[in-house]
Amino acid sequence: MPQATGYAMHSAESALEPFSFERRTPRPDDVAIEILYCGVCHSDLHFARDDWGMAQYPIVPGHEIVGRVTSVGSDVTKFQEGDVVGVGCMVDSCRHCQACGDGLEQYCAEGFTMTYGSPDRHDGSLTQGGYSDRVTVSERFVLRMPEGIDLKSAAPLLCAGITTYSPLKHYGVKPGHKVGVIGMGGLGHMGVKLAQALGAEVTLFTRSESKVAEAKSNGADHVVVSTDEEQMAAVTETFDFMLDTVPNEHDLNPYLQALKYDGTHILVGQMQPLEPGVAGANLIFRRRVLAGSLIGGIPETQELLDFCAEKGITCDVEMIDIQNINEAWDRMQKGDVRYRFVIDMASMQNG
Amino acid sequence: MPQATGYAMHSAESALEPFSFERRTPRPDDVAIEILYCGVCHSDLHFARDDWGMAQYPIVPGHEIVGRVTSVGSDVTKFQEGDVVGVGCMVDSCRHCQACGDGLEQYCAEGFTMTYGSPDRHDGSLTQGGYSDRVTVSERFVLRMPEGIDLKSAAPLLCAGITTYSPLKHYGVKPGHKVGVIGMGGLGHMGVKLAQALGAEVTLFTRSESKVAEAKSNGADHVVVSTDEEQMAAVTETFDFMLDTVPNEHDLNPYLQALKYDGTHILVGQMQPLEPGVAGANLIFRRRVLAGSLIGGIPETQELLDFCAEKGITCDVEMIDIQNINEAWDRMQKGDVRYRFVIDMASMQNG
Repeated sequence: MPQATGYAMHSAESALEPFSFERRTPRPDDVAIEILYCGVCHSDLHFARDDWGMAQYPIVPGHEIVGRVTSVGSDVTKFQEGDVVGVGCMVDSCRHCQACGDGLEQYCAEGFTMTYGSPDRHDGSLTQGGYSDRVTVSERFVLRMPEGIDLKSAAPLLCAGITTYSPLKHYGVKPGHKVGVIGMGGLGHMGVKLAQALGAEVTLFTRSESKVAEAKSNGADHVVVSTDEEQMAAVTETFDFMLDTVPNEHDLNPYLQALKYDGTHILVGQMQPLEPGVAGANLIFRRRVLAGSLIGGIPETQELLDFCAEKGITCDVEMIDIQNINEAWDRMQKGDVRYRFVIDMASMQNG
Repeated sequence: MPQATGYAMHSAESALEPFSFERRTPRPDDVAIEILYCGVCHSDLHFARDDWGMAQYPIVPGHEIVGRVTSVGSDVTKFQEGDVVGVGCMVDSCRHCQACGDGLEQYCAEGFTMTYGSPDRHDGSLTQGGYSDRVTVSERFVLRMPEGIDLKSAAPLLCAGITTYSPLKHYGVKPGHKVGVIGMGGLGHMGVKLAQALGAEVTLFTRSESKVAEAKSNGADHVVVSTDEEQMAAVTETFDFMLDTVPNEHDLNPYLQALKYDGTHILVGQMQPLEPGVAGANLIFRRRVLAGSLIGGIPETQELLDFCAEKGITCDVEMIDIQNINEAWDRMQKGDVRYRFVIDMASMQNG
């Protein structure tokens, strides 16, 4: 079995530490990949620190992977050695339920196999992620990096990018639409760029006055400081869509009131019970919709990569060496990153 | 001005009492109507007892009106003396906003004029409802009763019927769909009948074992007792749509989990903040939708009446005389009605 080197957590309280482990011997439909870059997602931290109560150790996090194919199994038809590819949050699913048939493997009736922290469907071994030098993935879950895309800043498209792109496409965002994006983090800044690229007029909602200039320089047409009641009142019944990237508790009611009749509020971040409670009247009196959306399927992730290459859309990234990953997590937890750390995996050879 | 006789509330605490008042002299676009029947809606009680804090007295309730045209204004083209017509929850709107243009006057940007308890848009007088012998309404808000419809049981179609029909049509319920209907009251029993008539397989959710037989005899294909955890678990990820007619606080999370991926939960009753809070994860992990819907527009109300006449769908009603209205309200408040009281307005001449 191929030997891999990476950084792992061995308990919820430990730091990430260098770790050697085995990747599986490629199966007929597998693609073996040398990892070039891996994005650092906030959920890596939550999962590995067991905030969601589902961690099994050791955990090598990372699900925003860009790499180069080193070999392919005998049944692989879409990739060959040397291809530059990507792997996102999923590495397998049941492949026969309705959602899988729809190309929306994230909604697989049997649950998709996560890139790290899931039992492999065939041998039961624990999957391990992209904070490492190599990975082996079934070709169905491997994306092709289109010509001309900037590989470093493409890594976060595989989670932050697709999480915002999928609902914007599903709900048909197009020119003429007014879209609000709530929160200016890894997801939010991609939401602004993608909604604009789809032709919408985009307003960024942020809690702090200090982020107004930053949001505008990142392409938002308008910025609303959500703690300012006058600014919020001024946008009552204005938006067709609200893309809500905030993962923490926040009151949805003022944002619902900012939607037109038939407007849609899309949650992609907040998993917890919505408190304070959404007022039924805010939905009923204007036929508004509150929807959820989870990452995106493999076909639409490929579509996103091609779209970003064509339009020159990139994620704003700060490159780090793998040796600085613990410091990066600390900074990420404080919101001190514009907007995504990406590990340059060449640094693995430094230590 | 034409003299009308009806029953009115004069304060939040009073009973409904006989009341004489003036209806407006018909304007050029008005239809003057002799009222034959008027349904008794739970919201009549809430509004008139000022549970919603918007009551102005006196209030003549009633917004499920069936009657006969006695005269028409000079500009009226759609109706003539002798036509049998209906009036529902709305008697006017701005007529120029997007929603009005879409034939969805209930979402009028300036707010629609309620059949009772709203200031008239032209003369500022307070509108008064259908617990009375006559009413004058602009023809745009008058419905035509189709040939062959049973007039007594058609009255509640104008509120209970359209409130359930509008979202079922908007979301495209059709053969092959599985629809859950929550609550077996005035709205719920119409939801069952209409979803079935649209070709769906219908499951009624009720809290009490005692309603199972009743629900089945009313046409539900299946019944789930929602307080039985095993029965609820057995329908996990089963439904395409959930039509939630419950007006009181209830936990939506078990119902959301009963929806398939891409399933839609439609609120038509609960205006208050949703407590306990809807878990974001219940929406996000299955791309589910929580939507609201309010009554229905005038064109779709006409469509509903025509649909019900064609399919022989009626509301189950218990006829009462106007003199028994206070007792009927007491019984309605206890849920002791199968499923709608309708006032026979001929009784007005008895007292």
